[in-house]
Amino acid sequence: MSKPVILVSNDDGITSRGIAVLVEIMASIGEVVVVAPNSPQSGMGHAITVGETLRLEKTDIFGEIPAYECSGTPADCVKMAKHFVLKDKWPDIVVSGINHGSNTSISVLYSGTMSAAIEGALEGMPAIGFSLCDYSSEADFSHVHDYIKKITLETLARGIPKGVALNVNIPPKRNQNIAGIKICRQANAKWQEEFDQRHDPNGRRYFWMAGNFVNYDKGEDNDEWAIANNYISVVPCQYDLTAYHSINHLNDSWQILD
Amino acid sequence: MSKPVILVSNDDGITSRGIAVLVEIMASIGEVVVVAPNSPQSGMGHAITVGETLRLEKTDIFGEIPAYECSGTPADCVKMAKHFVLKDKWPDIVVSGINHGSNTSISVLYSGTMSAAIEGALEGMPAIGFSLCDYSSEADFSHVHDYIKKITLETLARGIPKGVALNVNIPPKRNQNIAGIKICRQANAKWQEEFDQRHDPNGRRYFWMAGNFVNYDKGEDNDEWAIANNYISVVPCQYDLTAYHSINHLNDSWQILD
Repeated sequence: MSKPVILVSNDDGITSRGIAVLVEIMASIGEVVVVAPNSPQSGMGHAITVGETLRLEKTDIFGEIPAYECSGTPADCVKMAKHFVLKDKWPDIVVSGINHGSNTSISVLYSGTMSAAIEGALEGMPAIGFSLCDYSSEADFSHVHDYIKKITLETLARGIPKGVALNVNIPPKRNQNIAGIKICRQANAKWQEEFDQRHDPNGRRYFWMAGNFVNYDKGEDNDEWAIANNYISVVPCQYDLTAYHSINHLNDSWQILD
Repeated sequence: MSKPVILVSNDDGITSRGIAVLVEIMASIGEVVVVAPNSPQSGMGHAITVGETLRLEKTDIFGEIPAYECSGTPADCVKMAKHFVLKDKWPDIVVSGINHGSNTSISVLYSGTMSAAIEGALEGMPAIGFSLCDYSSEADFSHVHDYIKKITLETLARGIPKGVALNVNIPPKRNQNIAGIKICRQANAKWQEEFDQRHDPNGRRYFWMAGNFVNYDKGEDNDEWAIANNYISVVPCQYDLTAYHSINHLNDSWQILD
């Protein structure tokens, strides 16, 4: 069997440590092509570049591995990879990350890492976003290698249901070993924002957004529980946002329908 | 009963025609507060501003109606409204739009309009994103008034299931009247991008993203069908992205789980 073609992207930018680790792991599995943002794109959600021009430049940052830096968002990167880089060689899988920081629970909505994966899924490809639940720029990635390789190989071997991308979160390096890999649902939690209000040298006020993560979920089948208990969480995510359970409810209760 | 408090935001920016129409309609229903981006934010998905400062300035653009322009994304606007504008007066509903252009089907993922609504839903409030399926800056909004009012009043009266925001798309002004309002699912369709490649005066290439919308969906219960047949589509959207149907599948088929 020929080696799988693997498209790698991320949202922390092509020079981040996380993507370097991911490229190294993927190079041990298949033929790697990198298209990633030329600057950090954290919190970009599923943004795309509309009404502005895009740049795409080849870079030798990964040596022999073909790599391109793009001026756009993670979703733009996958779109541009498809058109200008991969052309006839459609990838067997899209992987994104490794994100510096957690993308569990509701953070998936804001995640540029997952938007690259979901863009891959939209094109019908198996796609995975990987995040390490450690925000430090000095984060220790030494425990992720074998697990990311195992999850990627399993995905290549068994596929993923259509319309779904995997959101994989890995606990930070702790004293105890990783307990295992768990398929989870997205935890019911949210960010409780706090804004730090300051004044610039001209006396005009400005704000920094900060916040605390608040977990309302008491279950043991969700990604927050998994990370807290040292498991790697794998949440299958869909891009069909329809709340099907609400369709009947609205049809029954609304009086303004025809 | 006291008048409902209504938070209005959008993604085309506070000076767009669509938000002016929405503010006018909402002022006929309740007490309106506007917090909207100070510049267009189309295609921003559920982006938030991370690692950059935010500004929030009062404006008299809507006369007596309290209004603030924010340097951030639509999701930022709702977060800032909550903290700095509404304070003790939590709104009864969040409405976003009216977007200049369709947010049917997969476009919901890229939609800043819907991200403001979903941010409201995350806070447990009824929330609706309104879009007019007409991209023209000269778009005719004359047919939307009664329907938007009716949908907003119905939502206030009957509520929306928790965890859900409504994605409302309105057909462009045509010769025949609107056929009615339909609860729909998100159509299975996608954007087939095309990139227009050019060269700048220095000979470096750059790109404009364009694309065609391709509808694979043959059903009559989806938002694309509704708009094509002159119905207003109402899709209940959830922010829990978990593909629940895939959890068992992955648990059964993967060999690497513990």
